[in-house]
Amino acid sequence: MVKRTDPYIPGEQLEQEGLIKLNTNENPYPPSPSVIQAIQEEMKRNLQRYPSPSADELRNTIAESFSLSKKNVFVGNGSDEVLAFAFMAFFEPGKPILFPDVTYSFYPVYAKLFHIPYEQVRLNDDFSLPVEQFFQSAGGVILPNPNAPTGLYEELDQIERIVQENKGRVVIIDEAYIDFAPTSAARLVQTYDNLLIVQTMSKSRSLAGLRVGFAMGSESLIEGLTRIKDSFNSYPVDRLALAGAKAAFEDSEHFSNTTNAILSTRERVIPQLRSLGFSVLPSAANFVFVKHDSLDGRTLYEQLKARKILIRHFDSPRISDFIRITIGTNEQMDTFLDELSLILSSASTVHP
Amino acid sequence: MVKRTDPYIPGEQLEQEGLIKLNTNENPYPPSPSVIQAIQEEMKRNLQRYPSPSADELRNTIAESFSLSKKNVFVGNGSDEVLAFAFMAFFEPGKPILFPDVTYSFYPVYAKLFHIPYEQVRLNDDFSLPVEQFFQSAGGVILPNPNAPTGLYEELDQIERIVQENKGRVVIIDEAYIDFAPTSAARLVQTYDNLLIVQTMSKSRSLAGLRVGFAMGSESLIEGLTRIKDSFNSYPVDRLALAGAKAAFEDSEHFSNTTNAILSTRERVIPQLRSLGFSVLPSAANFVFVKHDSLDGRTLYEQLKARKILIRHFDSPRISDFIRITIGTNEQMDTFLDELSLILSSASTVHP
Repeated sequence: MVKRTDPYIPGEQLEQEGLIKLNTNENPYPPSPSVIQAIQEEMKRNLQRYPSPSADELRNTIAESFSLSKKNVFVGNGSDEVLAFAFMAFFEPGKPILFPDVTYSFYPVYAKLFHIPYEQVRLNDDFSLPVEQFFQSAGGVILPNPNAPTGLYEELDQIERIVQENKGRVVIIDEAYIDFAPTSAARLVQTYDNLLIVQTMSKSRSLAGLRVGFAMGSESLIEGLTRIKDSFNSYPVDRLALAGAKAAFEDSEHFSNTTNAILSTRERVIPQLRSLGFSVLPSAANFVFVKHDSLDGRTLYEQLKARKILIRHFDSPRISDFIRITIGTNEQMDTFLDELSLILSSASTVHP
Repeated sequence: MVKRTDPYIPGEQLEQEGLIKLNTNENPYPPSPSVIQAIQEEMKRNLQRYPSPSADELRNTIAESFSLSKKNVFVGNGSDEVLAFAFMAFFEPGKPILFPDVTYSFYPVYAKLFHIPYEQVRLNDDFSLPVEQFFQSAGGVILPNPNAPTGLYEELDQIERIVQENKGRVVIIDEAYIDFAPTSAARLVQTYDNLLIVQTMSKSRSLAGLRVGFAMGSESLIEGLTRIKDSFNSYPVDRLALAGAKAAFEDSEHFSNTTNAILSTRERVIPQLRSLGFSVLPSAANFVFVKHDSLDGRTLYEQLKARKILIRHFDSPRISDFIRITIGTNEQMDTFLDELSLILSSASTVHP
């Protein structure tokens, strides 16, 4: 009577007092005061009325900031919903899609849910992308850039080659972390009709709590997503989220200040982790993916959790030795590094 | 490259100044002040953090108000999302489901989207439910009570018979309008493990703009919905919607005051419509479904729109002569009735 599926497991969302939460790549800084003000104004107006099903105002604001047209932009309830709609709109049973073997763990969940066959392309030993292996897919390609949970960034010209070598099939570039990396592929949207860029307001825009994600692509791809949305839920983005997201996009100063703060904390933390005996993968995201010489990932996760610090450990092939640490504020990272030092020194005392 | 689907067409959402909007069954009254206050408090806390994926607090509040447990309650982004998840969780290709021929026009859209075959059971000539024809479905049943767009209510004992006569298949009762009707089937949830009740905060709770819907059912059905949600979008209800919806449920006085106001306006408007030459179906909802002796539905819709009043007309078999009018405030309904009289008298002058 009830279908079985294997759901995606998100990072823990504990609301415990005093917890330092470095496990789900949220922004440690609150959104711009203008976001709060926009929500404040919107909530006094017509909460009893449905929101705009076409979300024109927010789509216009996003489009302008990327020098695109509203017709190239789709918005949804977080980038996860946008990705789910994209799987429904662009991938189909019988035609295997490609994604990396180490990547966002929601992709195989969507694929199974919608009966899309897939092949996982093995990343190189250093977790870099074997670009040519994504050419000539049968059913399309999806990959994050920067990749998660590794944080590795692939240059734009390589992404472009993948798009070029998949004519007639959709290539989805999931840019959840792109604002912490060199260059978005959004500039390619007007050149290639088979490229869909997915971004989120949950990371660099400090709005994980509001659930807004968006996609950019050719008019035909955006129409495809819109048809699925309108066959599923006409109004997935509520009035307050529409207003808050628009204000967040408009305050580019707050955005660049908070992003730069995170980048500078990241660059400060990486050598400190190395000096504690960690290998640190090159990160173009708001997190670092690291492996210790002697302590395994699960132990580190558990010992940090006992000290009220949450990080993410994935019990998956090739990465179970690693932990993923979201970049928090300088103060949070200092506490984290202090606790980590204590864990490591007590471990080396007990097991010399 | 892009899949074709036939989307659901929602009522127009125009934000035009001075428009009287009686077309999408929204509540004419704003939500409780305590809703605004709850959102106000929530938005100052952690908008940069993901909301609770399990929405425990809101589920507890809803459960208490129906004397159920949290494990019997699921919440989602509007009842449309909840319905979409239910189609995915409980219905399957190869086993036709049943729903009425005149009903919520999103059902066939979901069925096509998820490749669920369906049979439309012809309602009786007076649009009442031929109850026995919903017995022994192959794949399950979905029907709204009260039905939309007719507004007709079916007694609880008849709903119970349909549930009993579909053992092992899920019966979904879509109670979007139940708060304007005699009795919810929620009390049957603990007796029948195959009954799912879907409700919304968009109508009687004045929160269409926030996108919150919910379902009540056996633990096993709620687990089934949760697995689909977690395979699609871990956090579909944002922080502000969670907080606002909880406050709305807690203010039962505001809820009963606004609901009673709508019911009393409905009962006042019905005889006035009859005296203007309309047949009015018995309504247990916050709308009336009416047909005029001489003017057809489309003409009435167009002429009212020209006078800045939006109502809903469905160009569908059996109901194209009808119009559906949401019950607004007394003042809005007076304006509506005045304009309607003018349209009817000018029509009878021009075409005597």
